[in-house]
Parts: sequence; structure tokens; C-alpha cells
Amino acid sequence: MSENLSVLTKARQAYQPKLPVSLKNGALSVKINKGAATESVSDQAKIKELFPNTYGLPVVQFEAAEAKAGKALRMGVVLSGGQAPGGHNVIAGIYDGIKSVSKDSVLFGFLGGPSGLENGKYIEIDDAKMDAYRNAGGFDMIQSGRTKLETEEQFNKCIAVANKLDLDAIVIIGGDDSNTNAAVLGEYFQSKGVKTCVCGCPKTIDGDLKNEFIETSFGFDTAVKTYSELIGNIMRDANSAQKYWHFIKLMGRSASHIALEAALQTHPNICLISEEVKAKQMKLKDVIKQVADVVYARAAQGKNFGVALIPEGLLEFIPDVGVLISELSEALAHHEAEVEGLDTAAKVEKLCAWVSAESAEVLKSLPAGIQAQLMLERDSHGNVQVSLIETEKLIIEMVKKELKNRGDFKGKFSALNHFFGYEGRCAAPSNFDADYCYSLGFAASVLALNGMNGYMSSVRNVTKGIENWVAGGLPITMMMNIERRHGADKPVIRKALVELDGPMSAPFKYFAARRDEWAKTESYTYPGPIQYWGPSEVCDITNFTIKLERGAMK
Amino acid sequence: MSENLSVLTKARQAYQPKLPVSLKNGALSVKINKGAATESVSDQAKIKELFPNTYGLPVVQFEAAEAKAGKALRMGVVLSGGQAPGGHNVIAGIYDGIKSVSKDSVLFGFLGGPSGLENGKYIEIDDAKMDAYRNAGGFDMIQSGRTKLETEEQFNKCIAVANKLDLDAIVIIGGDDSNTNAAVLGEYFQSKGVKTCVCGCPKTIDGDLKNEFIETSFGFDTAVKTYSELIGNIMRDANSAQKYWHFIKLMGRSASHIALEAALQTHPNICLISEEVKAKQMKLKDVIKQVADVVYARAAQGKNFGVALIPEGLLEFIPDVGVLISELSEALAHHEAEVEGLDTAAKVEKLCAWVSAESAEVLKSLPAGIQAQLMLERDSHGNVQVSLIETEKLIIEMVKKELKNRGDFKGKFSALNHFFGYEGRCAAPSNFDADYCYSLGFAASVLALNGMNGYMSSVRNVTKGIENWVAGGLPITMMMNIERRHGADKPVIRKALVELDGPMSAPFKYFAARRDEWAKTESYTYPGPIQYWGPSEVCDITNFTIKLERGAMK
Repeated sequence: MSENLSVLTKARQAYQPKLPVSLKNGALSVKINKGAATESVSDQAKIKELFPNTYGLPVVQFEAAEAKAGKALRMGVVLSGGQAPGGHNVIAGIYDGIKSVSKDSVLFGFLGGPSGLENGKYIEIDDAKMDAYRNAGGFDMIQSGRTKLETEEQFNKCIAVANKLDLDAIVIIGGDDSNTNAAVLGEYFQSKGVKTCVCGCPKTIDGDLKNEFIETSFGFDTAVKTYSELIGNIMRDANSAQKYWHFIKLMGRSASHIALEAALQTHPNICLISEEVKAKQMKLKDVIKQVADVVYARAAQGKNFGVALIPEGLLEFIPDVGVLISELSEALAHHEAEVEGLDTAAKVEKLCAWVSAESAEVLKSLPAGIQAQLMLERDSHGNVQVSLIETEKLIIEMVKKELKNRGDFKGKFSALNHFFGYEGRCAAPSNFDADYCYSLGFAASVLALNGMNGYMSSVRNVTKGIENWVAGGLPITMMMNIERRHGADKPVIRKALVELDGPMSAPFKYFAARRDEWAKTESYTYPGPIQYWGPSEVCDITNFTIKLERGAMK
Repeated sequence: MSENLSVLTKARQAYQPKLPVSLKNGALSVKINKGAATESVSDQAKIKELFPNTYGLPVVQFEAAEAKAGKALRMGVVLSGGQAPGGHNVIAGIYDGIKSVSKDSVLFGFLGGPSGLENGKYIEIDDAKMDAYRNAGGFDMIQSGRTKLETEEQFNKCIAVANKLDLDAIVIIGGDDSNTNAAVLGEYFQSKGVKTCVCGCPKTIDGDLKNEFIETSFGFDTAVKTYSELIGNIMRDANSAQKYWHFIKLMGRSASHIALEAALQTHPNICLISEEVKAKQMKLKDVIKQVADVVYARAAQGKNFGVALIPEGLLEFIPDVGVLISELSEALAHHEAEVEGLDTAAKVEKLCAWVSAESAEVLKSLPAGIQAQLMLERDSHGNVQVSLIETEKLIIEMVKKELKNRGDFKGKFSALNHFFGYEGRCAAPSNFDADYCYSLGFAASVLALNGMNGYMSSVRNVTKGIENWVAGGLPITMMMNIERRHGADKPVIRKALVELDGPMSAPFKYFAARRDEWAKTESYTYPGPIQYWGPSEVCDITNFTIKLERGAMK
């Protein structure tokens, strides 16, 4: 199929990703430095009880050393959850890592995510297969999936597969849930005397899998740069035509890291941060007022155009919307028959009597299209599905109404909406993600070689230049706490939300200090497309979030 | 504002665009070679009558020559219509061109499009201003506008401005209409003894301003490459997740060049070409059947995913939709009161009695949402606005219904929709567009220096490497014919549609020969982001359309 390769894909296949010093001479030339025993971030007793074999392990750091002897490794790799740029490079790092131990090492790719592991569906990855996917975006080499490995039956099927393939280790590449799963599976394997180690690898474009030790999850850099390219192009259009407002929704359900980073890259007139909306207990009308104020003030300067960024998960962070949703679910469940067949306006009138006065007010304030959507689309549990609401359109409609209600709005408000998600998840990795992922994969091969179960591969100090990158491994249990999920206490890795204050708040504070200026002006910055060659300041830059969080930028 | 410049913008400002050999030594070192007198493409007598002073001029070609003497030039430049990547580079080419004649030459940028010329709103462009926009996307330096210069009153206001500024020439950068306007204005100026020449410059991302002499309009290359980057990323996502169909609508109302070029770059499972739909007199149900057939056949192979490209203007090319639209406009005009207040279903039932049986059938086949849209949104003349219909959603809904009706469809059809337009119009120009636009601008300065009125600047042979590029000028009248517009005969430049047969049909034929294979397989090609540095085959490639049209690729 090489006639179908683009010239860029071909040229990128030849790129040799950089490795931290400790990994440069191969997996056998690595010494493991162990730190002190660790504790989980909270709920220590409970988590220790759940992970008797893998709790309390030390953080480990790799150091270049004299080569030791080692025998061929047999490893398996699983891609779990949504696509993120760089997945193939993690696989390439593992592949080259185990081949540096022995040419006879073997890597199996489980097909279609965790279900491939459970059901023993796999391919053996060879040189030709691997080379075709080096530095390529997507997860298409072995595909991904969202099956959760949770039951003992599933675990035992995994054991059968691991035993059949005689695996030394399995690497699960995924987000917070998938890495939690990796830890649970690793604990189970060890408790059953299975020799196969299970390791994790931190992936998610959403950027919410990070903490003191994980500086960034892979894919975030590339995905946000791709979105920022598009946002910049649209900004330039807004500033050239000077007649439209563009409302751009960006992926990120649980956290607003993507919207915040895109704002740092492009300087929009408005960027809403879900975490701030929640912290300030802003109601829907407050959010609308805040947006309308910027539109109003710009119009007063004769500027009937602008760009606003909106995180996908916004509505779920607005307290009164949350209350409305739950009251509505309840009311619809009890009064289904009474509203059937009514048109939207009549349904709304009925429903207003069954919810609190405040929810009734919120419901009535919504555009008719959104009201209809709220009452129609319910999930299998009968709950109203807030995730299906087109937040960007809702905001446009409500701001339009708000401006009209003010009576003295003299400007024009023509707004267009966009949603960027799928455009960035499978982009070819930036040089940063290419290097970072390859290093994470290579580090995983070292964890496997040393029989380190329940670890996540780790590469730190990444804002400092490759010669300072530090590879190693983190015990997954140390990142866990107990959270209530679907009515049960579960050990999970704590999600990293945008911090408004505290140790990781520099990105938000940088934004907050400038947003009033950006609102009024056209401080627009046009990042342009990701570059793989050319000046280092263009090709090798990481993102603002990580630089600010790690003090590499003020 | 330099703190707001991205690293890429800064690095690109330093790029020196390449020039054809004939322009390399400056505008004074150019000899003008004139060809034979020209005729318009048709309606010669009528056009000659409309352009007594500027009809029949020769095509001119530039040749490097000994430098001659010349005095400082005073020029004005106008951006007209939608943004296209490279506009700033045309301005830079003009600027450097007139400065090569004399450091005292002056360039005025008229603000906000043709209305800036009419009303004498302008800035003087100096070195600092110019340098800030070199190789940058957008039209934000002087903005654009859509005012048409049509009346004698407007022309006389333009004369007053040209005289006041003592202009040697005005360059109007725009699409087919704007270049027609340039010719009309130039003719008027000359008839009134005004010394100012008016020149045109071929811009449009749609790619429909081209012919035997104009090989491509600027901006097309960059815009389609930007869309293709996104399409490729989405394809990779489709192929990784293997659970969604993505329907992607692409800009291009009158012609499908953008969709066709994007298909050549990415190899989608489906790409509809409006011109083919019209030529084959396909009805809406035929189009739906064709799409459903591909979905059905892929599902039979277990492939419930794919990517389909749809040109924005498709519906207007489907004959029975056209008939429906006009009958509906008529019926609604006569029976407005009778349908008022009815819900969509009741309206449709009423309307079906007032339109032909065939139109009634088409109307009934449409999804309810589209029916509602058709009956609600009418323009100021009361006409149903087909352009507001979300074609991509219409196709998804109807394909879903068609598959259900077949009864034996065993697959899944989950479809997502996207629309790419604003994402590409203001992208920073590719190396090709940067060089092409700069050369077009520089050539315009040579036309101005030589007092050549009614010409469009021209750069040809662009598939052959810069050393073979041929700069010159084309008399605008030679591209004209007479078309009926708003009830009157108007001289216009003939739009170039996608050719299914004939001299420029190679791009379509290349696609047509491969599309059945692409439908069944995942021949997906991922072009990735535009690169400015790196291997020449990555950075300096032009597009497939122009290479195929000009025989530079088989």
C-alpha cells in the first residue's frame, strides 16, 4: 500500500526519535535506582488492602550503566480508549527496547483494545509492520477499544492468554481508567503467581492524567497544537472579515486543559474554563452575562467580531444546569405519560411545575431547540444526556437573547460555531510527542526486563532538553485514591483538573492575568501547522501548559 | 504586538519567496513580449462593444533584459471577496516590485475591499507594515470586502480617489467577479482619460478561476492542503476506531475542485462531485442510493466505518432538488397564509398538493428537520434558501432511512458530520502559494510600470520548477463571455467547473479510475500538516489537480 503513503508520512518514517541518556545504549545498559517506599495520594489503608502485592513500591529512576546480560523478552501491548498522537511511537519504543535486549525478543499487539487481550486476538509485530507506523498518527496498526477488564472471569481469560504466549510483560497504553485497570490486572496476576508483569503508559489528549510525577500525558501536545492551528486560522479570518463571532468548542469533558492551552497559544477574546465556572459557583445566566459583556464591549468599539473557546464539558460544571438535569430526569421518569405527544412549549410548561422554581427558570431560559433535545434524548437509565447538548450553539442563542434584552446593544452579533475533536486525535505526533512516546515505550521495555509489575513508565524533566530527560517508572498505586463510581467505592487515579490556585496553577494564572486585554484587543496569535523540520524554536517547542507548570516559562 | 507573534509567524517572515527568472533583476529589467491580438472566449462582438478601449489586447510575456530607466510608481491595492492564503504575498510582490523601480515608489492599501477604493479609505504601506505580513495568511493587513463597483457614480468616486492620490495603477485582487469589475473599471478610466491602469489578480480558494492561461488561482493550494490535513486525521481516526462514518462537507458552492483535490490527496471511500451529479442528471434518490451502496458493501465486509467528502454546492446541482426549490418558493408565495401556524408535517401535506407529483415525492423523502428548514428560511425575495441546508446531515439522515428500507442491512451506520471552510481560508500560504502570489504581485508591478490597463497578472508553467515559471499579463476581456445574471446580460469571466471530459478532465478521470477501489478499501492517505522546511518533495509539492491538468503527472 506504499502508493497510498503521503510524501510526509514517508519522510517521517525516517525520523529517529530522541532518547534520554539513560536509554541510549539499550535496555540492557540501564541501572535501576530505587527510591523510598511510596504511599497512595490518599485512602492509604484501603488501597493497600486492595493491592497487597503491588502497594508501596518505590519510584524508580534509570541510569546509564555497563551492559548486563539478558534473555529475549516476550511482550504484549494494548491500546485502550480514545486515540492520541504518538501511540505508534510508544509501540516502536517498546519494540526497539526489547530488540536491544535480543533480536529474538517478540512483541505481540493485541487487537481492538483490552478485548484483544481478553480474547487472545493479536498479531506479532515484525520489522516491516513496525517501520510502516513509525512517527505516524492514529492507533490503526492494532486499533483501540473501550472494553473494561473488571471481572475475575476476564482476568482469568487474560491469564490464559499471557500463559499461552509466555509473556514477560503486557503494556496497557491508556488514560486514568486504563492505567488503574493495568494496576488491578497486575495485582491479580501476581496474586495468582503469574509471571507476566503489567505496566501502564500515560495517554490522553485531554491532559488530565498528570501529577507531581507525570509531567504530561502523551498526545496532548500534538492535539492541542492541531486545534490551535485551526483556531489561529479562524481568528485570522475573523480579523480579516471583521463580521463574525466564532464560537469554538474543544474536546475535553472532565477538564479544560485543552481549551486553556489553546487560549495560551492563540489569545482569544473569550475562553471559558469549566473549573473556574464551578469554583465560582457561576450560574448559567452568569456565564451568559460574562460572554455577552465581552461581545457588548467590543461592539462599543465598533468590533462586531471575535473568537470564543468553550470546553466540551462546560455545562456539567455549571451548578444550576446540574440541578436542572437531575430534576428533569426525575420529573420525566415520573410523568412520562403526561408529557407524551405534547410539543416542546407545552412540555416545558408542564415540567416547570414538577421541578424547583430555580430549575424552572433555567429551563425556560434555554432556546427551544435545546429544550427539545433535553427532553428527547435520554440514556438507557432514563437520564437526560447533557453531553449531547450542543453547548456552543446554546451559548450563541442565549447571548443573542441577552444582548437583545439589554435594549441598548447597538452592534451586530453574527456567530458561527465549530467543534474540534476528531481533527486532532490522530494527527501525526509533533517532534515532542514523537520523542516522548518513543522514550515512554523504551522505558516500558526496561520495566519489563526488570520484572517490575504495577508500574507506569515515566519520562520527566521534559521541558529541559533531551539531554536532561529522566526515564524511569512510577508505581501506579501511588497515584490512587478512592472515589465513588456508580454507587461503589473504587480505587482510581485522581484526575488532574485545571488548577486555579496551588502548585500547578501557573497556566491558569498566566491566562487570567491577560484575558481582559485579550478580550478587548486582537492580540491573536497564529501558531500555524505543526512543523517537523526547520528552526528548533519552531519544531521542538513543547506547550505552554507544561512550561508554565514546570517553571520553564514565567 | 510582536509578543503576539507565534514562533512560526516570526520564522516565516524571513522567508524570501522565489521569483521567475524574468523578474529576478527587478521590474526595470523586464522586456515585454507581445503576442497577437486576442478575442474573448465567446460573444466577441458584444464584449468588444462593451470594452472599446481594452478589447483585443495581446497576451504579454516578460523576459529578463537590460535595466531601463523608470520613475517612481504610485500604486493602490484592493483585496476583494473571501480570504485566500497568499493575499499578503501579492501585496509584498507589488511592494518589492515598485520599490525595485524606485525607493520613492508608494503603495496604498485600500481598506475593507472595493468600498475603501470608492470612499478613499486607505493606508500607506511602509517597510515595517509590509515586513509584518510577509508570508502570513489572512487579509488582515487591509481587510477585504464584498462591495461591487458597478454604477457610474461609484466609478466617478474611484476616479476622484485615483486622481487625488495620483495613482499609476490599482490592482484588484479577487475572484472571477472582482476581475470582471477590474476590467470594467479599467475600461471606464481609459474612456474618461484617467491615466490610472487597473489590473486584476486571480484569487479564490474554490479553484474555479482558471483556464487555458490561468493555471490556478492563488489560495487553492494552501486551503485544500489544510482541509486535506484534517480529512487525513479524521480518516486515521475512522480507521483506528472503526465504528464511525464521517461525512465531511467542503467549501465550494459553484465548483467541486476542492472536494476533488482533497479526494486525490486522501483517497476517501466516497467523494461526490457536483458536476458529475448534474451531468448524469442524478436525482436526489440516486445520490442517496450511490452513497448507501458503498456503506452497504463495506458493512458486508464487516467495515462499519468510512469517510465521505461532499462539496458544499451539491444540492444545487441535483436536478429534482432544483425543481422542488423553485416550485416550493412559488407555492409558499401564493399560499403563505394557508400554511401559517401549521406544524411541519401538516405544512408538507398541504404543500404537496401545490407542487408537481415529482417534487411532492422529493419533499416527502426529506428528513423532517430539513423540511422545516426549507419552509422557514427564505431570502428577501421570498425564495427558499438551499444554501442554508446542512447537506451533510441531510445525506446522513436519508442514507440511514434508505439502509433501513432495504430490510437486509446487517451492519451499523453511526455517522458524524463536519464542515471545513473557515479553517483553510486564512492559513499561512504554502511555499507554492507564497512564491506564486509574490510572483503575481511582482508581475502586477511590471504591468503598472508599463501602463498596461485591463490586464490580469499571470504566472504560468508552475508545475515545472521556478526556473521555468513564465510571468506576464493576460487581457481580462479575453476570458469573458456574456451570461444572464439577475435578468440582464453581463460580461463575466467564465467559471471553470470540474471537467468530466475534455482537455482539463485528467483530475476527475484519475479519481474516477480509482474510486471503486477506494470505496472498498482503506487506501487512506494522510497528508499531514503543510511543511515549510524539510525535504523538497514535502515542502515544495504543488497539488494533484494542477499536476494532472498540466500533464506533470499521469
